[in-house]
Amino acid sequence: METLETISKRASLKPNFSEREVEKVKITKILEAARLAPSARNSQPWRFIVVSGKKKVENVVTKAFFGFNQAVKDAPVLIIVCANPKDDDIHEGREYYLFDVGLAVENMLLAATDLGLVTHPMTAVNEVELRKVLHIPEEVRFVVATPLAYPKGGSYEEAAQERLSQRTRKGLNEIVYSDVWGKP
Amino acid sequence: METLETISKRASLKPNFSEREVEKVKITKILEAARLAPSARNSQPWRFIVVSGKKKVENVVTKAFFGFNQAVKDAPVLIIVCANPKDDDIHEGREYYLFDVGLAVENMLLAATDLGLVTHPMTAVNEVELRKVLHIPEEVRFVVATPLAYPKGGSYEEAAQERLSQRTRKGLNEIVYSDVWGKP
Repeated sequence: METLETISKRASLKPNFSEREVEKVKITKILEAARLAPSARNSQPWRFIVVSGKKKVENVVTKAFFGFNQAVKDAPVLIIVCANPKDDDIHEGREYYLFDVGLAVENMLLAATDLGLVTHPMTAVNEVELRKVLHIPEEVRFVVATPLAYPKGGSYEEAAQERLSQRTRKGLNEIVYSDVWGKP
Repeated sequence: METLETISKRASLKPNFSEREVEKVKITKILEAARLAPSARNSQPWRFIVVSGKKKVENVVTKAFFGFNQAVKDAPVLIIVCANPKDDDIHEGREYYLFDVGLAVENMLLAATDLGLVTHPMTAVNEVELRKVLHIPEEVRFVVATPLAYPKGGSYEEAAQERLSQRTRKGLNEIVYSDVWGKP
């Protein structure tokens, strides 16, 4: 898909997953997209744990995800994104590892959308339990998780249609200023 | 451009800017791309100050940017990205405003790349001075700034060629694990 079209069609879809396996070559393209993101001083603080197969995904989700996120336990692939804050810049209290991981994750979400896959970034997990089940070291922080799956019954575009029609975003006039803060 | 191509061609280019004006319709498309990013609980903490015109850009850069970033003072447009941390989720010390702004900024960088424009995200500014010159309220944090400009003498692809050939990124084997942390 064209870039601007993919950006406008990316949405966090409901977990209504096909059982169809996600091809390894697609997973690699998605991780490759994340890898190419910029980062402060090129520190590349992002790390990805790719959990594959229904049983393994179900185990992680059941143990570490909060109730309302349990629905992703049926995904064929779950990507857990982590980072070590010490791998990155801190400027005046702003921890750039979180910003940099955001850059990489957006690439990941767009690549997946372009490849027809459903994503849904989730932040509400039990980090202590996640650490246990995935052997994540103490100094590494969980940032976000997303399922990767084909939508059930139809294409990504069909699956996204309803969600996109209900999208709520602030208008540009609420988030953009000219020349100085507060000036429309 | 196709999405995966744009992701692979986006690069932080040297400030070698054409004097050509950046069309307003392009700036709007770029901000619109940022607007459509996801965010934790749809909080949309991002705010953008679009500084336009050589004199205004030069004023901001001269007063608030560190020495090695002074080179962007010739850009026709400078976008300053800010956020109010209180507008967003904090989970166990992770301030998601930074992550969410990262998602929006990557959309912005990709849209600009797709439209043939040079970007270069910069984090090293004097926040106190920036606050003064742009009237940014005390509770709002600066996150990142980027120039927007056409490259001097040639297309974006020509301008990016050298930089892309020198790109250094960790290999996928250094940033991706299977099923649990540390497993290749």
